[in-house]
Amino acid sequence: MQDAIIYLDSNSSMGLQNQIRQKLVDGILSGAFPPGMKLPSSRKLAQQLAVARNTVVAAYHQLIADGYLISRQRSGIFVNEQILESRVGHSGRGSVAAQAESAAWARRVRSLPARWREVHDQPNWRYYPYPFIDGKFDQTLFPLAEWREANRLALSVADVNEWSTGRGDSDDPKLIEEIRTKILTRRGIQAHADEILVTMGTQNSLYLVSQMLADTATTFAVEEPGNYEIRQLLQMRGADVVTQPVDEDGLVVDDRLCNANVVYVTPSHQIPTAVAMSLERRRELLDAASAHDFLVVEDDYECETNYMDHPLPALRSMDAGGRVIYVASLSKALAPGIRLGFIVANADFIRRARQVRRKILNHPPLNNQRTMAYFLSLGHYDSLMLRLGRIFRERRVALQRALNNVRGVPMEISPEVGGTTYWVRTPNDFDVANLIRQSEQHGILVEPVEHYYSIRENAENCIRMGVTSIPVERIRPGVERLVGLIREIVKGKVEHLPTSTGRWLRGDELRRAMLNATVLYREVHGAPCTIEHLENGVMTGRRGYANEDSDSGRWRVEGDIFYRKWDRWVYGEEKGYYIVIDGDKIKYFNSDKQIVDSAYIRLADDLPEAVG
Amino acid sequence: MQDAIIYLDSNSSMGLQNQIRQKLVDGILSGAFPPGMKLPSSRKLAQQLAVARNTVVAAYHQLIADGYLISRQRSGIFVNEQILESRVGHSGRGSVAAQAESAAWARRVRSLPARWREVHDQPNWRYYPYPFIDGKFDQTLFPLAEWREANRLALSVADVNEWSTGRGDSDDPKLIEEIRTKILTRRGIQAHADEILVTMGTQNSLYLVSQMLADTATTFAVEEPGNYEIRQLLQMRGADVVTQPVDEDGLVVDDRLCNANVVYVTPSHQIPTAVAMSLERRRELLDAASAHDFLVVEDDYECETNYMDHPLPALRSMDAGGRVIYVASLSKALAPGIRLGFIVANADFIRRARQVRRKILNHPPLNNQRTMAYFLSLGHYDSLMLRLGRIFRERRVALQRALNNVRGVPMEISPEVGGTTYWVRTPNDFDVANLIRQSEQHGILVEPVEHYYSIRENAENCIRMGVTSIPVERIRPGVERLVGLIREIVKGKVEHLPTSTGRWLRGDELRRAMLNATVLYREVHGAPCTIEHLENGVMTGRRGYANEDSDSGRWRVEGDIFYRKWDRWVYGEEKGYYIVIDGDKIKYFNSDKQIVDSAYIRLADDLPEAVG
Repeated sequence: MQDAIIYLDSNSSMGLQNQIRQKLVDGILSGAFPPGMKLPSSRKLAQQLAVARNTVVAAYHQLIADGYLISRQRSGIFVNEQILESRVGHSGRGSVAAQAESAAWARRVRSLPARWREVHDQPNWRYYPYPFIDGKFDQTLFPLAEWREANRLALSVADVNEWSTGRGDSDDPKLIEEIRTKILTRRGIQAHADEILVTMGTQNSLYLVSQMLADTATTFAVEEPGNYEIRQLLQMRGADVVTQPVDEDGLVVDDRLCNANVVYVTPSHQIPTAVAMSLERRRELLDAASAHDFLVVEDDYECETNYMDHPLPALRSMDAGGRVIYVASLSKALAPGIRLGFIVANADFIRRARQVRRKILNHPPLNNQRTMAYFLSLGHYDSLMLRLGRIFRERRVALQRALNNVRGVPMEISPEVGGTTYWVRTPNDFDVANLIRQSEQHGILVEPVEHYYSIRENAENCIRMGVTSIPVERIRPGVERLVGLIREIVKGKVEHLPTSTGRWLRGDELRRAMLNATVLYREVHGAPCTIEHLENGVMTGRRGYANEDSDSGRWRVEGDIFYRKWDRWVYGEEKGYYIVIDGDKIKYFNSDKQIVDSAYIRLADDLPEAVG
Repeated sequence: MQDAIIYLDSNSSMGLQNQIRQKLVDGILSGAFPPGMKLPSSRKLAQQLAVARNTVVAAYHQLIADGYLISRQRSGIFVNEQILESRVGHSGRGSVAAQAESAAWARRVRSLPARWREVHDQPNWRYYPYPFIDGKFDQTLFPLAEWREANRLALSVADVNEWSTGRGDSDDPKLIEEIRTKILTRRGIQAHADEILVTMGTQNSLYLVSQMLADTATTFAVEEPGNYEIRQLLQMRGADVVTQPVDEDGLVVDDRLCNANVVYVTPSHQIPTAVAMSLERRRELLDAASAHDFLVVEDDYECETNYMDHPLPALRSMDAGGRVIYVASLSKALAPGIRLGFIVANADFIRRARQVRRKILNHPPLNNQRTMAYFLSLGHYDSLMLRLGRIFRERRVALQRALNNVRGVPMEISPEVGGTTYWVRTPNDFDVANLIRQSEQHGILVEPVEHYYSIRENAENCIRMGVTSIPVERIRPGVERLVGLIREIVKGKVEHLPTSTGRWLRGDELRRAMLNATVLYREVHGAPCTIEHLENGVMTGRRGYANEDSDSGRWRVEGDIFYRKWDRWVYGEEKGYYIVIDGDKIKYFNSDKQIVDSAYIRLADDLPEAVG
């Protein structure tokens, strides 16, 4: 019998499936199993290794999901040709001598998985009028005078003498002190100076963490959907990445986490859904970490702009066992071009991380560290974050209001949790990809969500909309255009007049039906809204779980159209609809006779028998 | 028979020795072969794998040299307990529950070879009066006004709008253009914008290069002695590192390079010996690269301060085949705290390097990139480099002069090649480690050299002295103290009076002998120097290969001591010596009767018969 392509180690403490997986990954990354190589069938390899066939099948499936292998129908399983991107470049070239010569190095480039390139980005987002994409920076908010002041101080002779020379592997002690006293205290974290490491931002922090904690023998649990950057970094290290679902309380904590060595989590605002992890869930996660002996990487995403949202304490602040590695940005909201962030963890971990950072880049630039230290010590950072918190909250409310008021297809957003993004759900049969394409052509950028899923086919039918980069006055027109597009897309596919179900009310019948009727809405983010249509053409509305907000307005019927106008809601503008009553539901149709909304209705009297 | 711990792949294109090496490294780094594990004897493993025993022995030896394995006499070969530094930290702790808890993560830290910590560094060098160590920064030379000006421009509203936001993975196009037109042209390099990548300095460039080009299947040739940073980075990647000697023309180019995939070289000023690679050797290296299909990484060390030294063109400028990856610093001489450097290579390579950089840190800070762009465009960088070139040359000459004039034991330095360091050879039996220790206690820092050797036992008996961080007026007193220490160390161990060989001349006999005698020196850097002792107490000297310099002075004999005083040389100071003539050699002894120097002498007349 032919030799097996891998061998198992009978003394290994790893399970068989993990051993198979690890050895195949090692072989692929080292080039021993070249791209395009056909693997033995699961049956054959199982025979050779004397293991159950299911074990091999499971290992193969996992490697297919991770992109190392691909399955070609009716021909077998192969090493993914694109797993080492270099090979693509090389094999894609002609064999002309000059090209071969200049591409001599290309064959030698190692370990750049092809799927890195698939992530959606919009380098030219600035040229779009309605950029609802997250993580981009609104330069009009940059505190120029304050940054200049901090910068001028950092360029004093005494300061230059301190930062101009390298510091080996250490950071600016002034910046460390400011992080310790001004930023961490707000997150409830007490840390010594030797528990803090300055980095080149969160990407760099996660890179360091992945270099230190991940290898082919490590299992990392990540959120699904979740941050694709960490998934890619773990892929580079060949780690076993398992996904764990997220619900309305954040990462689900259950037995599936038992086998993880490290759990990556974004508790403040989950990436990408913006859900906040509940306090109880946080406690469960830390208890599980202790019980099952895993570490937690806490990426405190958007902690910077949380200042007005009374966020829950960081996991690191609740962490008695020293198991949490806390990662945060310093410059994302200030100016991403500056690239500063930090890690808080056990002093011993930080010492080792410092050694790794030393090998990668020595240390983040000390002139920027010193400038940031002054920016913090002068209180400019705090006031910037307060200001950004106010501005982003205003924008976020504007976006919610716009989505709530001009709905085209039923859409849902996550409940109010602060942050700067909304995770917008659409019906399952709605063609989101088409919407994103068309929006872009109409100057509207919204973010697709598949790349947040480890298996793209699992992606929910959602878009992600953020407000960090769009001025507040563009939000409503942007949403209105977006909804206009949605209406175009669904034209003819959604319910329209005349309708087969329910009764289209006209004229006096419509007026009589609406009189004293109560309408019960769900707003876009799930909160209830109750509208009463009174006798004198007056309308009252209460909304929120505790009727936090109310408004009054006027309603009337003219011809076959029901008009309503709130004093404040819906921008105080009058809207007209055709109305259909279908059992206990009311359906609103626009002038194109397309359905645009629906709600529950309680009529004052039963409808009379239908005419005809 | 027991199972082998590794298996060979009969289809592999790798040699047997390399396969064994690679599989052992993979096993060690993945933790499959834990620290302290005893390996099978070479005989046994050879039997199990059915290969020649020598093959296993060679693989083991290589891994011992790389620090993966250690050999314990009479007990066998083991996985080095310190190879994963984390294990040291872990096993070194007590088993108290709280400690075990807080150290939970420690077991999980991956791949930090212990030897990283062995490299000599002097974080407090600034507090020493005589810091003759290289690579440290003299902050008094920082061009404060010019940097402030560039910085102010980079903080204009228009500029801030450009740099404050992130740029995805791209660099500041203004900086790229300045590098292209102002820096590369001086090195003879023509490059397009897409052939340049900005990095966080040379360490970061080499990290990127090692991530891209090195893995366990790659052979890297490096200089011996050579840059330890690249060696460590390659170790991290598990690459096969082979060393290649350096002679007075730089890296030796011979058949040993045939099997390399990549050759790392420092042609401008070899690290650490400061030798410049000759033009012919450069051509040979490029020819070999083409013939044997390897890449060249050119680390243009100290290119920044080369402005006055008419350096040879960069390898990259002579590289028709696109095989050279050029690496240089932008901030080492300006202010290391800023951390900027760049890579020039084939556009395809740069594109991939950009992807890797994106994963590591996105991009170097754009505010610093823009400031540096202005600093260059205003011409400040050029004038700084000219100024530094002048200052460092002055210091270098002062160091050479000091070493030449106050010699304690015979020392040699490399010939004049520019740069800012000297590689100082001492006799083989001299205890250099003791000198370095004692110097430090006396406020003098000189650099040991063992860490530049892949096998420390091979280190020559040298010290390395640099001038970037010591003001010119401290050089002579520093060298004099150093030589004083050397004299203390060798006291009683070197020749002293009365001497067993040669004849100690006194009084009139001494005067007669010196009259019309010609003394032929070798200066410390190897150049000849001829001194003639004329009748009227006049002395003339010519030095250099073409008598580039001459001086005159006075000599006299008083009692048993020969005095000489040059007009300019030896700082114009009078020195007195006891003199011994031994055949055609003259030996100079100080007032402690220790030998301090020797030279060839041509006497006007034979010495008369010895008296008694």
